[in-house]
Amino acid sequence: MTTAREIHLTRYPEGKPTLDIFETVERDLPAPKEGEVLAETLYLSVDPYMRGRMRPDVKSYIPPFALDEPLDGGAVGRVLESKVDGFAPGDLVVAQGGLGWRSHGVVPAGALRKIDPSLAPPSAFLGVLGMPGLTAWAGLTQLIRPKAGETLYVSGAAGAVGSLVCQLGKQKGLRVIGSAGTKEKRDWLVREARCDAAVGYKEHDAASLTTALRDLAPKGIDGYFENVGGMQLEAVLNCINDRGRIALCGLISQYNATEAPAGPSNFANLLTRQVLMEGFIVTRFMDRTEEFLSEVAPLVAAGRVKHEETVYEGLDRAPAAFVGLFEGTNTGKMVVKVAE
Amino acid sequence: MTTAREIHLTRYPEGKPTLDIFETVERDLPAPKEGEVLAETLYLSVDPYMRGRMRPDVKSYIPPFALDEPLDGGAVGRVLESKVDGFAPGDLVVAQGGLGWRSHGVVPAGALRKIDPSLAPPSAFLGVLGMPGLTAWAGLTQLIRPKAGETLYVSGAAGAVGSLVCQLGKQKGLRVIGSAGTKEKRDWLVREARCDAAVGYKEHDAASLTTALRDLAPKGIDGYFENVGGMQLEAVLNCINDRGRIALCGLISQYNATEAPAGPSNFANLLTRQVLMEGFIVTRFMDRTEEFLSEVAPLVAAGRVKHEETVYEGLDRAPAAFVGLFEGTNTGKMVVKVAE
Repeated sequence: MTTAREIHLTRYPEGKPTLDIFETVERDLPAPKEGEVLAETLYLSVDPYMRGRMRPDVKSYIPPFALDEPLDGGAVGRVLESKVDGFAPGDLVVAQGGLGWRSHGVVPAGALRKIDPSLAPPSAFLGVLGMPGLTAWAGLTQLIRPKAGETLYVSGAAGAVGSLVCQLGKQKGLRVIGSAGTKEKRDWLVREARCDAAVGYKEHDAASLTTALRDLAPKGIDGYFENVGGMQLEAVLNCINDRGRIALCGLISQYNATEAPAGPSNFANLLTRQVLMEGFIVTRFMDRTEEFLSEVAPLVAAGRVKHEETVYEGLDRAPAAFVGLFEGTNTGKMVVKVAE
Repeated sequence: MTTAREIHLTRYPEGKPTLDIFETVERDLPAPKEGEVLAETLYLSVDPYMRGRMRPDVKSYIPPFALDEPLDGGAVGRVLESKVDGFAPGDLVVAQGGLGWRSHGVVPAGALRKIDPSLAPPSAFLGVLGMPGLTAWAGLTQLIRPKAGETLYVSGAAGAVGSLVCQLGKQKGLRVIGSAGTKEKRDWLVREARCDAAVGYKEHDAASLTTALRDLAPKGIDGYFENVGGMQLEAVLNCINDRGRIALCGLISQYNATEAPAGPSNFANLLTRQVLMEGFIVTRFMDRTEEFLSEVAPLVAAGRVKHEETVYEGLDRAPAAFVGLFEGTNTGKMVVKVAE
């Protein structure tokens, strides 16, 4: 009999999530049945999209989390017991569900993928080689489709997704400008991620950011990878070139909003400049995982792509890690280390 | 020596254009030089996009109109004198510029296309077989790309562009819902344009239009051809399906706005429902004119596409026709008849 420690949601947050809506619960797990494995969690992922699952009343692309049940998400684990062909005790796996926010889980085969630890450390499969990596690759290569010499602006550029977008953009010969909330992150973007420029947003409104972007992107902006929303989108719409492309990946600035924020007031620029804007969810590109890995894994293995991590230690710190996402306490991928 | 009567703009409008910003001026025309024709205007086009050219301070896709010069736009005319190979006196032509808002003009060959009067009456080449027709065809077939069985919503559906979008949508096996401001236009949409339903907007806000659209589009909206903007876009974003497509063609509800209106407050639905929205200007698709005509001209000739016109008689009525666009006095294409 294995006892799992799980983080449950005790009520839905209003506005920014706080630590007191989470609790840790112990639960005895059943033995795995045919087609399942029992695994222990090594690292779990906390991601901004999870905030969207903490709204019981909003129809979204995935169902809301249930109260008094374990939260869920991506996790890397080690197989302890297997009733699935091809998975043996000791194998390292990434689980899309069934292992997140808990110390142990019984996971169905369909949610499992074996990982190759020779490519990168295990936690990288939650970040640069996991869903955030696929998100970055798909938004840039499938939606923005940049041409060498174009200018790319990335909001939330020091995050798990944004930092890979910036680096893939540089690999493709783009001028890349990233935004981040602290000087430390902006220094990292220029020094490590090789961005041509980095810009803050906390000290700007839409008008002053517009002025700043006109300096940093003298030929205008061709592609915008949007992780944040709000006034950054408005500033970009002032600077975007004809036939510009916007990949709408995240709007973290408004995930905690209690009232619907107004859209950009210069919305009409989408029309006059013939801009293409497309929202996307990474699950749409799951069938491109091999193509993504074949492009990005060698860059990671060769050290040509930097992938920062912010690691919170211990399952009990998962709520703090999650809350930290909305305070920008992470550079790169936010993960929680649950076991060695 | 030919004397032309021309409509000039004496000052830029603030908000809705009024008749007193226009004046009629007589001017003697030079003889056509090599590569030009002298033509008399039969019909001229007034279109909502012209409002955008009445702003001296806004960078747009075409330059602003100059004050105390003739306004311009599309027109159908008859050649009086030709210095262009292939054009002879008596030929009927459509001119993209140089003949609009005036009785006679000297037009360069590059702006001229000969028309075949056996296909449709001459004024149709300003509407269903002209730029509005190409706009409708391109937005629907190149941007929305609907599949049979899907649901299409068209705002400004009784206008020159919208009415063709609706009918092409029906040809392609779609459920089509159009919006229009009067009961007379809505009756026309259902009876003549064969829309499945027509809905008003003057009696709605975003919330009540959302409710109405949920009834009229029980399977949700897959494609939206946007001519109007404002709360209709907000209502559509409440009803749009995953992977819906929005062709952003016009935003007539805000062309006269003196302050930038807020974008839709449910903007985030673009992300969560993975919507593709693209602005476009018809000039981008000019090289598809033959393909457009080969699809639409036979439908027009066979009477399978209705194309209403609202005709104002006499050059001096051009300002009233233009102002009328923003009051919805037209069903279908608004034209001014200048001569027989």
